Formats: sequence, C-alpha cells, structure tokens
Amino acid sequence: MQTHAHDMTRRRLGEGLASLALAVAAGGIAPLPAAAQSSTPEAGQQPTGHDMSVTPPHWIGKEQIAFLIYPDFTALDMIGPHYMLTNLMGAKTHIVAKTKDPVKSDTGLVFVPSASFEDCPADLDILCVPGGTLGTLTAIRDEATIRFLKDRGSRAKFVTSVCTGSLVLAAAGLLDGYKATSHWLTKALLSKFGAIPTEGRVVRDRNRITGGGVTAGLDFGLGLVGELRDRNYAEGVQLLAEYDPQPPFNAGSPEKAPPEVKSMMDAMFVEFLKTAEATVLAARTAKP
Amino acid sequence: MQTHAHDMTRRRLGEGLASLALAVAAGGIAPLPAAAQSSTPEAGQQPTGHDMSVTPPHWIGKEQIAFLIYPDFTALDMIGPHYMLTNLMGAKTHIVAKTKDPVKSDTGLVFVPSASFEDCPADLDILCVPGGTLGTLTAIRDEATIRFLKDRGSRAKFVTSVCTGSLVLAAAGLLDGYKATSHWLTKALLSKFGAIPTEGRVVRDRNRITGGGVTAGLDFGLGLVGELRDRNYAEGVQLLAEYDPQPPFNAGSPEKAPPEVKSMMDAMFVEFLKTAEATVLAARTAKP
Repeated sequence: MQTHAHDMTRRRLGEGLASLALAVAAGGIAPLPAAAQSSTPEAGQQPTGHDMSVTPPHWIGKEQIAFLIYPDFTALDMIGPHYMLTNLMGAKTHIVAKTKDPVKSDTGLVFVPSASFEDCPADLDILCVPGGTLGTLTAIRDEATIRFLKDRGSRAKFVTSVCTGSLVLAAAGLLDGYKATSHWLTKALLSKFGAIPTEGRVVRDRNRITGGGVTAGLDFGLGLVGELRDRNYAEGVQLLAEYDPQPPFNAGSPEKAPPEVKSMMDAMFVEFLKTAEATVLAARTAKP
Repeated sequence: MQTHAHDMTRRRLGEGLASLALAVAAGGIAPLPAAAQSSTPEAGQQPTGHDMSVTPPHWIGKEQIAFLIYPDFTALDMIGPHYMLTNLMGAKTHIVAKTKDPVKSDTGLVFVPSASFEDCPADLDILCVPGGTLGTLTAIRDEATIRFLKDRGSRAKFVTSVCTGSLVLAAAGLLDGYKATSHWLTKALLSKFGAIPTEGRVVRDRNRITGGGVTAGLDFGLGLVGELRDRNYAEGVQLLAEYDPQPPFNAGSPEKAPPEVKSMMDAMFVEFLKTAEATVLAARTAKP
C-alpha cells in the first residue's frame, strides 16, 4: 500500500472519495489534507489545490473492488458498502453483472453495470455479493454466476457479502468451514451449507466478511475502510456520511422487535426459506 | 387511504414491499399478513397465498413518490429512503431525471431513470431530492430542474430532501419560512436562503421534511413509513432492513468526531461552501 502519493493522487483521486470524487477532480473541493497537519499549497496552484504530497501515503491505495449485481438484488445491500468503499482514495470499483445489460433491483431501480463477468479484473482485493429474496435464488441457480464467484473468490483478498448474499457465497462453496452471518431470517440456514452461523452484525473469519441484513452493509463497509486505511480516515468517511444513526423505532433485530412484528415477518418467509435451502443445497451438489 | 384491500393487493402488491416486491408477486413469499391476526388462506390457493383481505386496509396506500436524480448526485441519499418507502404497499415510486438517459452518481453508479420531467405524475404524495456536491450545484443552475421542482413542489403532499438536497429545495424557494436541515457542512447556509436551520437529524415543518447528511435518509424514510401506515408496519420494515445500526466508530456528527477529523473535512469544503452560497443565491434571484 506504500505508493508515491503525489503520482497516485493526480492519477486516481477522481476514482475515490465518494461524493467528493468528481468534485475534487473538477477542482471545486480540496482533496483530503493530512490530518492534524496544515496543507501547504504550491506556488501557482489554484487556491483549492492542496499539495497532496502531505497526504499520508498509506491513505492512498489501489484496491480493485467488485460488487456483483443480478436481477432483483437488493440495492441498499450494495450501496451501503459501495458508498463507504468508494471513499477509499485510489481504489477502483466495479459493478459487475453477467452481461452489461441494465439490471433491475427488487425495488425497481435500474443499474447499468460497469463490467461483465469477462471484463471484471481477474484479481480482486474485495469481492462483495449483495442479497435479495427470490432473485438471489435465481442467481444461485445460474451456473455462470457460481463459476464467476468460485474463480474470483479463490483469489480475492476479501470475500464478502451483505444480507442473503452469504447464501450465494455458500452456494459457491466459499463459506465452507468459515464463521459467517446473513439476514437474520436466513442465518440459521448457513449451518446446512458448510458455514458456521455466528453472532454479530458483521462477522469476520480470516478473509471472509459477512454482514447481516440490508443496512448491516454500512457497518461492514465502514469497518473495512478503517482496516484498509486507518481510524482517522474512517472517521472522516463516517463524518462525511453523517453516519450517526437515530432510527425512529427500535425494532431492527429479532430480539428488539415486538413479537407480533417478528411473527409477521416469520410468516411471510416460511416458503422462501424452504426454497432457499433446497436451492443452495442443489447448487452445492451440482457438478462444477 | 381507505381502499378495497383485496383489489388493491391483487393489482399493486408487486409495486411495494421493497426486497419482497417481486418475490411476493412471483408467489415465493407470502405477503404481509395482518399483525397479531392469523391468516386465513382461501381454499384452493397456493399454500403461500395468504388471504390479503385480512391486511388492515390502512396498510395499503396509493402514494405517488418521486425521487429526483441528476448527474453526480449521491446515490445513498436516495437509496436509503427509497428502500424504506418502496416498502409501502400500494405505493408507486418514480426515479425522475431531466431526460430518460442514464444518470451517473458521484460514486460512479449508473441509473436508468423511470421517468423524465414530462413523464412524472403531476400530483405527487412525496417529492424527494437527494444531495451531492458539485453536481448538486450544477442541478441548481439548471432552469428546467428548478422549474420542475417549483411545479411539483407546489402541490406535493410532502416536499422532502436528504443531505444537500435541501439546497436545491431552497434554490427553488420551497423552504422559504420553513425550519429545515441539511448536511452538517451546509446547514448554516440555509439561513441565507429563507429557511430556518434547525437542530435534528430529520426536521419537519408542516409538509417539509429535510434530512441531514447521506445516511439520515434512512431515518427520514423509516419515520415517514410510520406516519403513512402505522408503528407496527414501520417496525416490520425496520426488522426487514435489519436496521439495528452498530457503527464501528463514533464520528458521525461534528460534535462526536475528533476535532482533527472535523477540521480536515472543514478544510476540504471551504471553496465548495463559497460556490454553493453564490449558486443558490443566484438561482433564487433568477427570473422565473
């Protein structure tokens, strides 16, 4: 991760820094100065142009990050960590689908992928799989999708998921023998797929990191930013995201939700869970 | 909001329920049964087919919801409330841009809008404007965008924003005399645009609801679900989203962040704030 900060900045800054990316590239917002160190503008520069050579070199990386998307995936599963991880200066993020055709999420959002399975870099630093419901099971039944995950997952520095994305990882055999989590509804199922269901909103075991349902992706993504840079850097990203959550209700986990609310959710997913189990098991026993 | 639940369900269920939408429509997941009331399947139905006539009628609405998107908007500003609000059974959500051409967010996500300004329903229940940085200022300079917001905002039941989206509302004169908030970096600016900067992660004044930076959209959206349905319904959505946040750091507000981290962010945005002020003021004094 030690790079020539100055060169990296000129070349790559526009690819990181989330909402700042294009703003910084366009010269309208000053790039990240060093923490607790005043910037020293070079003579002749724009007044907004900090001398980025004061940025700690380890703040600038070159990660290759890929998010898998597929029809009827849950967009927030992906966008939460995507926001956090695209704030990694120097990182390059890919939205990867089977083809480059537009992909519709389960809430009707239509995304244009940036890469197909063929275009996706062979060696990834982070591979992340978002979840969903029936769409996720359809993805699991797709041989090309499983083949892609087995390949990239065999070499990725971090193999990760949010929500029921862990079912897809499990279907590809990528959680065998690993502690993991999933959406609370599907977490117990993991034990049938070679994984070890484990307490925690974000569960890490060696290079596997799995998040709980939907919004857990924010906590997963921010934690990974802290690991890949440092605490100050992640705190800056958290402040930029104004991630100081104040949910108006207190029902965000099966333990906290009123029993009748949990029962309602359980009732809705009875058939889904049966289908999910059968689908993942079938994928795991299919010929490679 | 009183509707014939049974009819509404058959026609509209696939349009709501976020990650459940297509799953339910496809018969794989049982739709929301009534809380604290067992479902009574009709004879001859699929085992997964609850009799939706037991769903409380007030749980099924017909809201028309529009999210504005524009080049370099911050996707998470939009996706947070979008997730929550698409869980409103019966609601119809539109992703509206100037044209139907793909729109790239500030983190490089490419969205295909579902409607142009011309296609967007004339009368909206919820109009929501996400924020961004320089892209937001470019949107403010665009006459067609301001004209669209003035028109739809004059009749919308709720006029809302997340993050610096409140600058766009202010530029369109939609916050004159209203208490409001914005991203913490831009909140104080609101007082120069006829609005009253007010404490709170989500600020409501009559039919204006403005959220703080980026992730505040989750709290805004979930709160609005509670208002438009009821507490149990919103708790169900919160549990589905597993919205039980556990940020790995504690720097999500200017008060909580370490001073050197806040100083770093302040330094990055000095020029942006100047440009933002001038841009919004110019839009407010432009001829209609």
